[in-house]
Amino acid sequence: MNPSTSALLTDLYELTMAQAYQEQGMVEPAVFEFFVRKLPPCRNFLVAAGLEQVLDFLSGMHFTQKELAWLDQTRLFKPGLLRYLETLRFTGAVEAMEEGTLFFPHEPILRIVAPLPEAQLVESRVINLLNFQTMVASKAARSALVAGGKPIIDFGLRRAHGAEAGLLAARASYLAGFSGSATVLAGMTYGIPVYGTMAHSFVQAHKDEVQAFEHFAQAQPNNVVLLIDTYDTETAARKVTSLAPVLRAKGISVKGVRLDSGDLADHARRVRRILDEGGLSHTQIIASGNLDEYRLKDLLDSRAPIDSFAVGTAMTTSSDAPSLDSAYKLQEYAGRPCRKRSEGKATWPGRKQVYRYYAGDGRLDHDVVTTHDDRLSGIPLLQAVMSDGRRLAASPSVTDLRRRTADRLAQLPESLRALETAPAYPVQISQALQGLAETVDRGLSHVKEI
Amino acid sequence: MNPSTSALLTDLYELTMAQAYQEQGMVEPAVFEFFVRKLPPCRNFLVAAGLEQVLDFLSGMHFTQKELAWLDQTRLFKPGLLRYLETLRFTGAVEAMEEGTLFFPHEPILRIVAPLPEAQLVESRVINLLNFQTMVASKAARSALVAGGKPIIDFGLRRAHGAEAGLLAARASYLAGFSGSATVLAGMTYGIPVYGTMAHSFVQAHKDEVQAFEHFAQAQPNNVVLLIDTYDTETAARKVTSLAPVLRAKGISVKGVRLDSGDLADHARRVRRILDEGGLSHTQIIASGNLDEYRLKDLLDSRAPIDSFAVGTAMTTSSDAPSLDSAYKLQEYAGRPCRKRSEGKATWPGRKQVYRYYAGDGRLDHDVVTTHDDRLSGIPLLQAVMSDGRRLAASPSVTDLRRRTADRLAQLPESLRALETAPAYPVQISQALQGLAETVDRGLSHVKEI
Repeated sequence: MNPSTSALLTDLYELTMAQAYQEQGMVEPAVFEFFVRKLPPCRNFLVAAGLEQVLDFLSGMHFTQKELAWLDQTRLFKPGLLRYLETLRFTGAVEAMEEGTLFFPHEPILRIVAPLPEAQLVESRVINLLNFQTMVASKAARSALVAGGKPIIDFGLRRAHGAEAGLLAARASYLAGFSGSATVLAGMTYGIPVYGTMAHSFVQAHKDEVQAFEHFAQAQPNNVVLLIDTYDTETAARKVTSLAPVLRAKGISVKGVRLDSGDLADHARRVRRILDEGGLSHTQIIASGNLDEYRLKDLLDSRAPIDSFAVGTAMTTSSDAPSLDSAYKLQEYAGRPCRKRSEGKATWPGRKQVYRYYAGDGRLDHDVVTTHDDRLSGIPLLQAVMSDGRRLAASPSVTDLRRRTADRLAQLPESLRALETAPAYPVQISQALQGLAETVDRGLSHVKEI
Repeated sequence: MNPSTSALLTDLYELTMAQAYQEQGMVEPAVFEFFVRKLPPCRNFLVAAGLEQVLDFLSGMHFTQKELAWLDQTRLFKPGLLRYLETLRFTGAVEAMEEGTLFFPHEPILRIVAPLPEAQLVESRVINLLNFQTMVASKAARSALVAGGKPIIDFGLRRAHGAEAGLLAARASYLAGFSGSATVLAGMTYGIPVYGTMAHSFVQAHKDEVQAFEHFAQAQPNNVVLLIDTYDTETAARKVTSLAPVLRAKGISVKGVRLDSGDLADHARRVRRILDEGGLSHTQIIASGNLDEYRLKDLLDSRAPIDSFAVGTAMTTSSDAPSLDSAYKLQEYAGRPCRKRSEGKATWPGRKQVYRYYAGDGRLDHDVVTTHDDRLSGIPLLQAVMSDGRRLAASPSVTDLRRRTADRLAQLPESLRALETAPAYPVQISQALQGLAETVDRGLSHVKEI
């Protein structure tokens, strides 16, 4: 059983609601939009990601005979629903921001228009996919901005929340500017460059640290990156300089050393000196160990001689904000715009478009969220990507998306690049959208009466 | 491609190290142990979970032809490694604490003994599986302790980090004391009870809230739980009391109402009064909306008339501690105990056993971590579960594990049940283990020299 593709990876209420819709013949087009209500602490922008997996999911959605048989024996559902599910395929339309687009609260990044039960049934997984990759891409982009071109590698698989999280965090962080991942499956699945060094266990399994280094170099002559903090970092660095001539005689050069504990800036300085004095000025220093964008910034500000970084847990779990306040909300049913008015959770009704405006220097200036049929002079960010359940274009490569994301990050106003909370980017709600909300509210005025 | 079962869901360095080991004939038995270095903030204990998925992974591990062909074309590996991987199966032994066992820092909850390349290759996924479920079970247990018997349902799928996280969070939280999950696939896969109500979109899709309630009741006559905060909570509660006699005439009773926004305690009191005055004293109140163990405690302390809770994001992401400081470390190779001595990350060497001692009242008193061959009077917590790559017993059902976990949580000393950090539970390192560490260190003294 593959949880990534099962149609039963959904909340029970999606099925109970589908049963009621199906029973009442409520199968008119429904419009749902995915958006984020507010930015997590210290975030000044978000990076849209996960669309590709959403389109995969929608294209492939179906219930297997085994799943239907299981649903049947729960006795929670009527035969009519099971017959409906048996032939169900997603037949709707999707508009979305391209992955890697920067966006802000209340801006929909995806809209689904489909018969109500279809649009409802996909809710749980659509949120699950967009929420996670967007969260990770947004966190990773902060490290990429701080690193200013120095390579960062994703080392997060082991602390990712399960298999799919490890794989998709590699994708989302690469899209946002990381240089690659240690996760091999991300290489095979998405063509992401894979990187790796050695573990402490490799050194420990040898009686002698130098022998461990030598064995590793012989096995991976083109990728000799040696982990030097298993026992004593500077001692190991000196061993590397002693070993280097032996390896050189075999045509092998020491590409890098990795530091994984202690005061990384201090160790990097000492190790750099040892390597330089030992004739290894070409050997790079790679740092890892509980890094995040803040520690990266400290290390770079201190001018520590570190050439590249590995970032794991903090990015892959988005540790300071492990979820987004995201929502997938019904905005229109059967041509009638609607909105939720729960306390603190009210939404803007109807189908929407987001227009982006740029300043003279090419940086983002402000956005306007308006009704779908409004025509403004800015750049519209939502584009049709699926119609009648079929993709309208081939999937872009993650490498292409990554390049375009880098261009967009370069368009961020200076203030929004900060790691701390900056004054909010201006997102205006158009007169047309405000007017629509008032109209909807007038239509709802009866609900206060009894 | 199913990321949950692919052998390539691993860090690249596992493969590069395996190549060096294979090349050097370093295939003697290696001993790795998984443990947590320190408790996350505000946690006083951890709940071991994920063993079942680790054993599944180890039993099924193999490289497919497609994966081998991909590895080959990367040109990162030599033919010898690819031949080795082609027939590789896990042939090792596993000892572990039963899932649901309470444990503390420096106590191994799993030991793998296998030929070095095998034990190394499985590292990334073993950590990934144990880290996540243990983290979630430990968080969920806190809510279960606070709720004191009131049912809690997992609503976390949408904000879980991908597909597997959603599924396994349902499992881990059920094991730790939740009553069920909204995630349908968790019902099919693990036999976990599934629960569900309705979404705001269901109410919005109808022009009239009462009609929405009526349609839902007709579709799910045995499970009428109505969401009443879409527009105005108390108004909707009054509508429910007006609708109830109509439904009763059809033999349908209103099982519950769900509150999802605003001041939940205040709304619960008002709604309880409306329901009671309307003759619906049997109708239960379910609360949801950004709940965690702290908000649960506040609601219960305030004696809000809430009958059950749905907990999502905070539990499924372990939001206040979205990772554990966990490690899978080489403790012995070819009969030689070893330890890592990196700054702040030193480990205890060798194969270990954890003995638990209970106080007269049946509560946990203290633990002793000692060498594997030491014999103490306490209860040994690590038991053999796999030998020669085969499970030694059938998988326990999650329901059985859940019952035993509840018994163990009842054995927690009162102080450790607190939501805030309590004085640490006593975990002693035995003389035998300290002696072994000294011996290992003497053997390592040469590494300081050059």
